[in-house]
Amino acid sequence: MKTIYKNSAATEGLVLAPWREKLNEVIFGSETAAGRNFDLTLIVLIVLSTLVVIVDSVEEFHDRHALILDSLEWLFTLLFSLEYVLRLLCVRQPWLYMRSFYGLVDFLSILPSYVGLFFPGVQYTSVVRILRLLRIFRILKLSVYLNEANLLKTALFNSSKKIMVFLYTVLTLVVICGALMYVIEGKEAGYSSIPVSMYWAIVTLTTVGYGDIAPQTPLGQITASFIMIMGYGIIAVPTGIYGAELIKTVNEANLSNEACPDCGGIGHDIDANFCKYCGHDLGDLPSHH
Amino acid sequence: MKTIYKNSAATEGLVLAPWREKLNEVIFGSETAAGRNFDLTLIVLIVLSTLVVIVDSVEEFHDRHALILDSLEWLFTLLFSLEYVLRLLCVRQPWLYMRSFYGLVDFLSILPSYVGLFFPGVQYTSVVRILRLLRIFRILKLSVYLNEANLLKTALFNSSKKIMVFLYTVLTLVVICGALMYVIEGKEAGYSSIPVSMYWAIVTLTTVGYGDIAPQTPLGQITASFIMIMGYGIIAVPTGIYGAELIKTVNEANLSNEACPDCGGIGHDIDANFCKYCGHDLGDLPSHH
Amino acid sequence: MKTIYKNSAATEGLVLAPWREKLNEVIFGSETAAGRNFDLTLIVLIVLSTLVVIVDSVEEFHDRHALILDSLEWLFTLLFSLEYVLRLLCVRQPWLYMRSFYGLVDFLSILPSYVGLFFPGVQYTSVVRILRLLRIFRILKLSVYLNEANLLKTALFNSSKKIMVFLYTVLTLVVICGALMYVIEGKEAGYSSIPVSMYWAIVTLTTVGYGDIAPQTPLGQITASFIMIMGYGIIAVPTGIYGAELIKTVNEANLSNEACPDCGGIGHDIDANFCKYCGHDLGDLPSHH
Amino acid sequence: MKTIYKNSAATEGLVLAPWREKLNEVIFGSETAAGRNFDLTLIVLIVLSTLVVIVDSVEEFHDRHALILDSLEWLFTLLFSLEYVLRLLCVRQPWLYMRSFYGLVDFLSILPSYVGLFFPGVQYTSVVRILRLLRIFRILKLSVYLNEANLLKTALFNSSKKIMVFLYTVLTLVVICGALMYVIEGKEAGYSSIPVSMYWAIVTLTTVGYGDIAPQTPLGQITASFIMIMGYGIIAVPTGIYGAELIKTVNEANLSNEACPDCGGIGHDIDANFCKYCGHDLGDLPSHH
Repeated sequence: MKTIYKNSAATEGLVLAPWREKLNEVIFGSETAAGRNFDLTLIVLIVLSTLVVIVDSVEEFHDRHALILDSLEWLFTLLFSLEYVLRLLCVRQPWLYMRSFYGLVDFLSILPSYVGLFFPGVQYTSVVRILRLLRIFRILKLSVYLNEANLLKTALFNSSKKIMVFLYTVLTLVVICGALMYVIEGKEAGYSSIPVSMYWAIVTLTTVGYGDIAPQTPLGQITASFIMIMGYGIIAVPTGIYGAELIKTVNEANLSNEACPDCGGIGHDIDANFCKYCGHDLGDLPSHH
Repeated sequence: MKTIYKNSAATEGLVLAPWREKLNEVIFGSETAAGRNFDLTLIVLIVLSTLVVIVDSVEEFHDRHALILDSLEWLFTLLFSLEYVLRLLCVRQPWLYMRSFYGLVDFLSILPSYVGLFFPGVQYTSVVRILRLLRIFRILKLSVYLNEANLLKTALFNSSKKIMVFLYTVLTLVVICGALMYVIEGKEAGYSSIPVSMYWAIVTLTTVGYGDIAPQTPLGQITASFIMIMGYGIIAVPTGIYGAELIKTVNEANLSNEACPDCGGIGHDIDANFCKYCGHDLGDLPSHH
Repeated sequence: MKTIYKNSAATEGLVLAPWREKLNEVIFGSETAAGRNFDLTLIVLIVLSTLVVIVDSVEEFHDRHALILDSLEWLFTLLFSLEYVLRLLCVRQPWLYMRSFYGLVDFLSILPSYVGLFFPGVQYTSVVRILRLLRIFRILKLSVYLNEANLLKTALFNSSKKIMVFLYTVLTLVVICGALMYVIEGKEAGYSSIPVSMYWAIVTLTTVGYGDIAPQTPLGQITASFIMIMGYGIIAVPTGIYGAELIKTVNEANLSNEACPDCGGIGHDIDANFCKYCGHDLGDLPSHH
Repeated sequence: MKTIYKNSAATEGLVLAPWREKLNEVIFGSETAAGRNFDLTLIVLIVLSTLVVIVDSVEEFHDRHALILDSLEWLFTLLFSLEYVLRLLCVRQPWLYMRSFYGLVDFLSILPSYVGLFFPGVQYTSVVRILRLLRIFRILKLSVYLNEANLLKTALFNSSKKIMVFLYTVLTLVVICGALMYVIEGKEAGYSSIPVSMYWAIVTLTTVGYGDIAPQTPLGQITASFIMIMGYGIIAVPTGIYGAELIKTVNEANLSNEACPDCGGIGHDIDANFCKYCGHDLGDLPSHH
C-alpha cells in the first residue's frame, strides 16, 4: 500500500514537484524527524478530538459547555480537512488514495461536521466522527509494534479456516439451543421468540450472562445447565486453535529454514554458526552473508 | 459413509440404472458442476427455510404475515420432500440411508409440516424443522474445510478421556458446592433445593453468572468467593487439555508422511536422517532433495 | 495406598484367612469378574443414593413421597454400613483404613442417618451424605481413566508453585480493588464494607458478574473498567501456566529418556529402534528388553 | 535492588557499625535464622493488621468494638514505625531506600494513622493502610517462589509488546462498539452517553456481564450478539500470547546453562553435541557424563 503513495521504481514516470515530494515524506513517511513529529501531532489531535466526541455525548457537558465543545470540534474538523487536502496534493494517484480503506476513514472523519451544517436536524451523525480512532492504526503500521502486530495477524490468518468451522458449529448450536429453550420456557420467562432465545443462547454460551433473561422452570434450568457446560468446553476451542497457531508462528520466526550442507540437519536457531548435529560450519550458507 | 451411497468395488453387484447413477452423482457428489450447483442451491434453501421458522416464531410476524410464511414453509417442505424421495431413489441401499444420521435428519426436517396437517392443535412441532440446519454439515463434509474440521475433531477425540475425567470432577464439585450453599443460604436467598443450588453452582463455575440467584449472607458470599476462584482455576483445565492436544495433532500433521523404503515405517520427524525403526538412510527420499 | 489393603511382600507377615483374602479381592480389587461387578454395583448404589438426597431436598417431593424417600435412604444406609463392616473385616490393618481419606468418607456417608435417629431435630445433617459421591473416585482409581487423571494431576502438581504465586497476586489485587471501590462507591451503591467490596472484586475478576452489586458513579465505572480489563488479562495466566505444564507433561510421557550410546542424542520417541541422528541401533538399551 | 541495602564490593567504602551490619542481616536478609524469624513475624503482623482494617470497615464491628480495633491499629502502627526507623538506621543509603518502591509503601502504611491524629475529620485515609499487603511481596522475593515468580514475570515482560497491540485494538473496539450501541439503544435502555456505553462494552467484551445495562431493542440485541461473539474470540488472544510465551520461557529454562569452554557461547540445547557458535565438541562438559 505504501507503494501507492511513495516514490518507487514502478511509479517513476509520475514525477512530483519537489515541494510535493517533501510533503509526501512528512505526511506518509516516518523516517525523517519532520515525519515523526507530524505522526505524533496527528496522534495527539486524533485522541483529543475523539475525547471531545465522547465528552459531548454526556448530556450534562453537552448542555453546559456547548460553545467550547462545538468550537473544538470545528477546529479539529478544519485541521483534519486541511490534512486531507494536503494528502490529496502529495500522493501520486489521488483517486486511488481516496478509495483506499484509510482514505475513506479520513473522509468519514470530517464529513459529519459538514453534513450537520446543512442538515442540523440529523442526529447521531456526529458519532461517525469516532471512526477517526481507526486512523491511529495507519501510524502504528510504521512503528516498532509492526512486527508484533504482524505475528498476531499471521496467526489469526492461518487459523481463520479452523475458526470459520468453529463459528459455524457455534451458530448451529445457538439456533438449536435457542429453539429448544423457546419451546421449554416460552413467553412467560422472557423467551418470547426464537430470535430472543438465540440472543439468550449467545449471552450464555459466551459466558457473558446478563441475567435479563434466565430460565425459570426446572426443565429449563437443567437444559440451560447442559448448554452452559457445553459453552464452558467450547471456550477452550478458539483458545486452543489460536494458541497452537501462535506457538507455531513464533517458532517458525525463530528457526532458520536452511539445512546443514554436511548432515542435512534442519531446525537450527537463526543465530547458530555450526550445525548442532554434526558440528559443520554453517557460515557458508547464503543466508549468513 | 460415502461408500454406502456411491459406486464402489464393494457394492459393484448392485448396478443402478444410468439415470440413477447420474442422479447419485449430482445429489451425493460434489465433483461435477451439477453436483456443486445442487449443493449450493440446497444450502440456500436450508438457510432460507430456517430463517422462515425463526421469523415465524416472532408473534408480530406470525400474526401479520401468516399466509406468506405458511406458503413458504409448504414450498420448502415440498422441495425437501422431493429431494428426500430422489435420495431414496438413487442410493443403492435405501433402508441403510434412512437409518443413517443424516437420513433421519432429512426425514425429521419434513415430518412436522405433515404432522401439523393432521393434528393442527399440536404446537411447537414446527420447531423441529430447525434441525434442517444440521443438513449443511453433510455438504460441508465435502468441502475445503474438511481437513480443518477433521483436525479439530481428532484433537477432541484424543482428549475425550481427559475431558471425561475433568467433567466428572466438575460434576462432583457442582453437587458438593450446591449442597453446601443450600445449607448455608437456604430458601430465603433463592437456594430453595439442592437441584436449584446445583444450577447456581453451574452458573457460577462456568463464570456465566446470571445473578438471578446470588449469595446474600456473609458466610454464603465467602463460600461463593472460594467457589468462583476455584472455577477460575478450573477453566484453565479444558483449555490446557484441548490446546495441548491440538498442538500435538498439528505437529503430527508436520511429520513426514513418506514411508521408509526399507521397512515401510511411517511417522518420521521431518528432520530425521535415518529411519527410526530400521536405521535405513532416509536421505534418498524425494522430499530430501 | 493400595498396599495398605492388598496382599504384598511387605505385609506378608499378616496372613488373612482364605475367605477374607477372597473378600479383599472382591471389594478392593478390580482384576476378577466379581471385583468388577462389585465396583459396578457400588457405583450404581452411590449414584442412586445421591439422587435420593438431592430429590429429598425439593420440598414438593419431600412432603409428598416422605415414606418412600426415607425407606430408600435407610436401605442405602444399611447397605453401605454392611459394606463398611466388610471392608473393616478384610483389610489387614483396619485402623489404618479407618483413618485414611476414603475410610473417613465411607464413615461420613453413613453417619448422618444414625445421628438423625437419635437427634431428630438436627437439620441439614442429611446433606453430609452427599459426600458419598467422592467414593466413586476410589473406584475410578482402578479404571482405564487412571493414566489420564494422573497426567492431569501431575501437571497440576508441577504447576502448583506458579499457581500459588498467581493466587497470592490475585488475592492482593482483590483486597486493594475492594478497598478502592469501597472508598469510591460507598454504601449507597451496595459496597457497604471492604469484605463486601472484596466479594464484588472476586465476582468481577473471575468474570462471573452477577450484577447484584455494580458501580453506579462515573468514577466507579471507570475504575471497574480497569479492574475488568485487568481480570481479562489475568485469566490468561492460569490457562498459560497449566497449558504449558500439560504440554511438557504429555511430551515427557512420550519421550524415551535414554541417550543413544553411539552419538549421545536424546529425545527419541519411545517406539524408536534406531537413533534418529546417527542411525545407531537402540535395541540394546535396557528399556528395550 | 538488594545491593542498595546489603554489603557488596561496590559499596565497600560505606562501612557500617557492626550492630548495624547485624541489624541489616536480620531485617533485609533471610539467610540467618534470625532473619527468617523476622520475616515470618512481619508476615503475620501484616496479615493481622490488614484484617483489622478490613474488619473495621464493617459498620457493625466498627461500632461495637471501636476501642479494641483502634488499640490494635495503634499497636500495629507503632510496631511498623519502629521497623521503619530501624530500616532507615541499618541501610547504607537511607535516602535511596526512602525513595524506593518498598520504602514508599512502608511509609504509606504508617502515615494514615498519624494523619488521622491531626485531621480526625478526613475519612477513608485509613484505607490507605491496606497497601501494607504489598510489603509481603518484598519478603516473597527472598523465598523459594522467587524462580516461579520470575518465570511468570519474564513471560509477561516478553509478551508485553504483543499485549499492548492487543489492548489498543480492544480499546478501539470498545469505543466503536460503545458509540454504536449508544446510537442504537439510546437513553431509554440505559445507554445514556458514550462513556456509559463504553463501560457496557467493556463489561460485555470481558464476559463479566453484570446485566445492569442490557440491550432491549431487537437491533441492539443483534449488535450485542456480534460484540459478544467477537469478545469470545478475542479472549483467546491474550491466553494464546501468554501461553505461547510461557512455553517458550519454560523451554529456555531447559536450555543447558553451561558455557562452551572454547568460545564462551551459551544457550545450547540440552541435546546439542557441538557448540552451535564455534563447533567445539561439548561432550567433555561435566553435565554430559
